[in-house]
Amino acid sequence: MAADITSAAESYFARVRRGDLPPPPVSTTLGGRITAVDLEAGTLDSDYHAGEAFLNPAGQVQGGVLGAMLDDVTAFLVTATLAPGEHCATLSLNLSFLRPARAGALQGRAQLVRRGREVCHVAGDLLQDGRVVATAAAVCTVVRKR
Amino acid sequence: MAADITSAAESYFARVRRGDLPPPPVSTTLGGRITAVDLEAGTLDSDYHAGEAFLNPAGQVQGGVLGAMLDDVTAFLVTATLAPGEHCATLSLNLSFLRPARAGALQGRAQLVRRGREVCHVAGDLLQDGRVVATAAAVCTVVRKR
Repeated sequence: MAADITSAAESYFARVRRGDLPPPPVSTTLGGRITAVDLEAGTLDSDYHAGEAFLNPAGQVQGGVLGAMLDDVTAFLVTATLAPGEHCATLSLNLSFLRPARAGALQGRAQLVRRGREVCHVAGDLLQDGRVVATAAAVCTVVRKR
Repeated sequence: MAADITSAAESYFARVRRGDLPPPPVSTTLGGRITAVDLEAGTLDSDYHAGEAFLNPAGQVQGGVLGAMLDDVTAFLVTATLAPGEHCATLSLNLSFLRPARAGALQGRAQLVRRGREVCHVAGDLLQDGRVVATAAAVCTVVRKR
C-alpha cells in the first residue's frame, strides 16, 4: 500500500499542515487538529472537540456529528495522499455507533484499507476516554480538476 | 405500520412541536425546522440550513454534516412515535452521497420502513433545489428510562 502513496510538498494537504492555508471550515467547526500522519503505515490521527451545540435530546453528542468527525479524519487521510489539483470526494460513509459520547474531547484515527488510483476505502475509529464510540467505513474517490 | 405508531400529547416530541421545550441543540445548529409530520404515512419533513462553517476543502457542504441532517430527520421521526420517558438512539447510519451540496437551504424527509417495538428502520433523503444530494438508511433503537 505504501508504494501507492505520494505526498507532494505543494499539495493542499502539505500547505494546510505547514500553516500556509487555513484548514477547511468544517474541520475548525469540529475542533479538528491533525496530530499525526504516517503515510507508510497509511494512518492519520486527529483530535476533535464536540461543543454543547452538537448535543441531541439525550444530552449526548449526536451520532451524525460523530460521523462528520469520522468523515473529516478519513477524507483528510485520503487528501494527504493527493497530488496538487486533486481533491477527495466521499461517496459513502457507513457509520456504527457503539457507545454514547458526551461533549468534550474525542480522538479520531483513519486507516487506509485500499488506495486505488481513483477509489479509496478507508476505515475510521472515533474514541473518547480510550474507548471506541463510533466507527466508519468510507469510500472516497479522487477528483481531478479539469 | 400506522397501527404501531403512537403519539402522546406529553411526549418529548409533542412538547418540542408545541414550543414548550426548545429543540435539541444539534437541530438548531443545523438550522433544523420540522415542517410536516404524518404518522399515518410514517413520514417527517424538516428544513435545514448549511452555513459556511460546514464547508469542506472543495467549498461544498461536508458529507458528514449532510449525514448529521439525515440523522436529525430520521431520529426525529422515530422520536415522534415515542411515549413519554422514551428516547431514540441511532445504532447505525449508512450514508450515500449523490451530488455535491452548496451552503444554503436543504430539505430533509424521513420515511419509517419498519417500526418494531425496540428497533426502527428509517430511510432518509436530503434534497437541494429539488434534487436528492444524499440518502440514509438508519437503524435506531427505543431506549426506555429506567
